[in-house]
Amino acid sequence: MPIINIHLFEGRTVDQKRKLAAEVTDAVCRSLNVTPDVVRIIMSEMAGENYSIAGVLKSDQQGK
Amino acid sequence: MPIINIHLFEGRTVDQKRKLAAEVTDAVCRSLNVTPDVVRIIMSEMAGENYSIAGVLKSDQQGK
Amino acid sequence: MPIINIHLFEGRTVDQKRKLAAEVTDAVCRSLNVTPDVVRIIMSEMAGENYSIAGVLKSDQQGK
Amino acid sequence: MPIINIHLFEGRTVDQKRKLAAEVTDAVCRSLNVTPDVVRIIMSEMAGENYSIAGVLKSDQQGK
Amino acid sequence: MPIINIHLFEGRTVDQKRKLAAEVTDAVCRSLNVTPDVVRIIMSEMAGENYSIAGVLKSDQQGK
Amino acid sequence: MPIINIHLFEGRTVDQKRKLAAEVTDAVCRSLNVTPDVVRIIMSEMAGENYSIAGVLKSDQQGK
Repeated sequence: MPIINIHLFEGRTVDQKRKLAAEVTDAVCRSLNVTPDVVRIIMSEMAGENYSIAGVLKSDQQGK
Repeated sequence: MPIINIHLFEGRTVDQKRKLAAEVTDAVCRSLNVTPDVVRIIMSEMAGENYSIAGVLKSDQQGK
Repeated sequence: MPIINIHLFEGRTVDQKRKLAAEVTDAVCRSLNVTPDVVRIIMSEMAGENYSIAGVLKSDQQGK
Repeated sequence: MPIINIHLFEGRTVDQKRKLAAEVTDAVCRSLNVTPDVVRIIMSEMAGENYSIAGVLKSDQQGK
Repeated sequence: MPIINIHLFEGRTVDQKRKLAAEVTDAVCRSLNVTPDVVRIIMSEMAGENYSIAGVLKSDQQGK
Repeated sequence: MPIINIHLFEGRTVDQKRKLAAEVTDAVCRSLNVTPDVVRIIMSEMAGENYSIAGVLKSDQQGK
């Protein structure tokens, strides 16, 4: 604890994930005053056709 | 908010997902009196071997 | 399956939840061609201090 | 209800999942005094690059 | 990893949760051949008005 | 997107949550090269009796 689940779009590089894991863990440790070893992060990647805003699939939208 | 996560079996067409996103968003707006732009839907697709009812994998079941 | 998790702000009436459950279930059945008995909905209520957009807690924001 | 979501690393065989579903369902029934038919399990598989402990991706770690 | 999230109805005793944690952890270790220390379980309790089957709130149903 | 769910123990102050939301959002923006407005964070608070490591409830453990 804390356990963090991040839904993000697929297509990120391993390097981006590596940075994400490190930086989010740091942010959590600073904010909650915990040590890094208790912070676990799960990344769930999604295709654009599996996410909608305002009822429209991401893969059908222009821009964000 | 609301943020909605739908676990469904893999194999749906983009068109079914498109309809699902639109109809669920409408249903949420009508029920909770919110505008569509605040409704986000995440669809998580699952293989039949990753879901069980009563301790039996979906891929091992006949019927539902 | 489908199993649906809806994160929403606390403060909704039971009647709103009742309507939400009924309407979202209908929407899912129509879109995915499933029968209502396989549709399960979990509602997770959140306080405004437990949700942020753009790094600002909902309870610290004006408007949405 | 209960609905159980298990995040596990990818690479398990169907047979391991079959055993996991059966044994976890049994454990839940014994502990909560419910019948198997109300127990649903969703397994979410993750690549090693999508999970971190202490800010380090699993795929970058030696050992666990 | 594995990280397990169990949605269950509120009203269980601490003793039931204690048993649930122990038995599910055992089941996971036996099935996936992992050691107990990597198994984490999150229990999320729900009111009957926050769960629906077939579009009907649990709190509005008779029986399960 | 990204949508982030953080499970943490109950008992944090609003100020800690405020800092958590701001710092995690910053970390995500830096790592994934997105703007803050697309980052949403849901915090789910848990009692110690609702979390277990190695089959033992947090509320039954000494230390972490």
